[in-house]
Amino acid sequence: MKREELISNIYAKKSVLCIGLDTDITKIPPALLSEEDPVFEFNKAIIDATHEYCVSYKINTAFYEAQGIGGWKSMEKTLNYIPENIFTIADAKRGDIGNTSTQYAKAFFEKMNFDSITVAPYMGKDSVKPFLEFEGRWAIVLALTSNEGAFDFQYLKSEEGELFKQVISKVAGWGTSDNLMFVVGATKTDQLKAIRALIPEHFLLIPGVGTQGGNLDDVCVHAMNKDGGILINVSRQIIYQSDQVDFAERARDEAVSLQKKMAVYL
Amino acid sequence: MKREELISNIYAKKSVLCIGLDTDITKIPPALLSEEDPVFEFNKAIIDATHEYCVSYKINTAFYEAQGIGGWKSMEKTLNYIPENIFTIADAKRGDIGNTSTQYAKAFFEKMNFDSITVAPYMGKDSVKPFLEFEGRWAIVLALTSNEGAFDFQYLKSEEGELFKQVISKVAGWGTSDNLMFVVGATKTDQLKAIRALIPEHFLLIPGVGTQGGNLDDVCVHAMNKDGGILINVSRQIIYQSDQVDFAERARDEAVSLQKKMAVYL
Repeated sequence: MKREELISNIYAKKSVLCIGLDTDITKIPPALLSEEDPVFEFNKAIIDATHEYCVSYKINTAFYEAQGIGGWKSMEKTLNYIPENIFTIADAKRGDIGNTSTQYAKAFFEKMNFDSITVAPYMGKDSVKPFLEFEGRWAIVLALTSNEGAFDFQYLKSEEGELFKQVISKVAGWGTSDNLMFVVGATKTDQLKAIRALIPEHFLLIPGVGTQGGNLDDVCVHAMNKDGGILINVSRQIIYQSDQVDFAERARDEAVSLQKKMAVYL
Repeated sequence: MKREELISNIYAKKSVLCIGLDTDITKIPPALLSEEDPVFEFNKAIIDATHEYCVSYKINTAFYEAQGIGGWKSMEKTLNYIPENIFTIADAKRGDIGNTSTQYAKAFFEKMNFDSITVAPYMGKDSVKPFLEFEGRWAIVLALTSNEGAFDFQYLKSEEGELFKQVISKVAGWGTSDNLMFVVGATKTDQLKAIRALIPEHFLLIPGVGTQGGNLDDVCVHAMNKDGGILINVSRQIIYQSDQVDFAERARDEAVSLQKKMAVYL
């Protein structure tokens, strides 16, 4: 998906909501477990109930890989079920030497049809560049993550500033705001201003609202730009609102509630 | 596999050779393409020809993921075909927030039966710890990689030294030399002494000998310890020695040649 289409969807829906399909088979309503593919049935119901209120779905590949080949099938079916005009993210945190990153890019952009993939920056330029060579596809590079472990290395300060700032500055030079986004945790509102100063144009993928404690209003105030410019990911707080037969309805209610809060800023 | 067993295999075989099964369907002998699962048939022949001369196989998951579900099946079949007493590595470069890393650990240690997985350190402690909670399994954490992009971030110097040294020092405290290894590129011989001073006991997984230009003798001299203490990974230089029907034989010749050079130091 091209940047213009994403922006147009954001303003049409008045939403920057990304729904994370971190679908854990042990957490879905027991009623679904008799289905042939419970994870897909769960996702299908969630997508049906929520797609009008979000502009993106993020599939956390780990939860599918943990189910082996069956999980990989559920992931492909889920991806193919997502409506055409919604931005899809493979939350896969990949990244390796060049020839290997090229294989990952083929896996997620050619074998499957994701719009984007999350990428870990530790191995540098040749690990990121292969993901930027596919027309209309995006690399979403980890900058400042929402978890406790973010404090271990991401804030380490060298002469030119903290590591996460180095990552943003350098990586931004390897692509454009048409094929690169950055992950910045919603729990890092103090840093969002500084990050916006570094990269005013780029989209940010912002996890951490909800279960992890980030505040939605703070994020909208500090991170939005004239194009919307952010995707706020919410996973567990939406998809696990209920473990009863009303799970999809309750997920929709939560998505609507979040979308309304976002609309104020759009 | 436990550390003692790995060490015992190293001395029994007089080898620290790890063979990388980065099996690219576009590079295997054309004669195999008529097989039902060409990638598995290729790997099977390589394993049959080389398993006496190596102590480890490393499966680069990207090459299998690029083939979709069929690739995932080839990977599982390959893993199951590797003899019991050989240390297996999922070269998957995973790592995410805690609950997600736990899913990756389940994927590679429970759903599949790998001894170890490579892990990217950028997201810190809660992204690495879940891989350390499985008895007899290992996390192999990226420290100083063999690629050009290693210079982008891994050498950034904060008050307490370069990033890769920070990674080694901190991560070493999260596990033990019985469940943690580090990736250090063979092209970094200048750094190997410093790394050995930091972690005299830990095993190092050393890619970059061969196609990437690392020197085997230098690595053995600077990185081995009393337990062997290293696994030298060679991929393309072994598995793509020939694209004719003699590919497995030629791969064995190369494995034997490398093993003989290693034996001098063991």
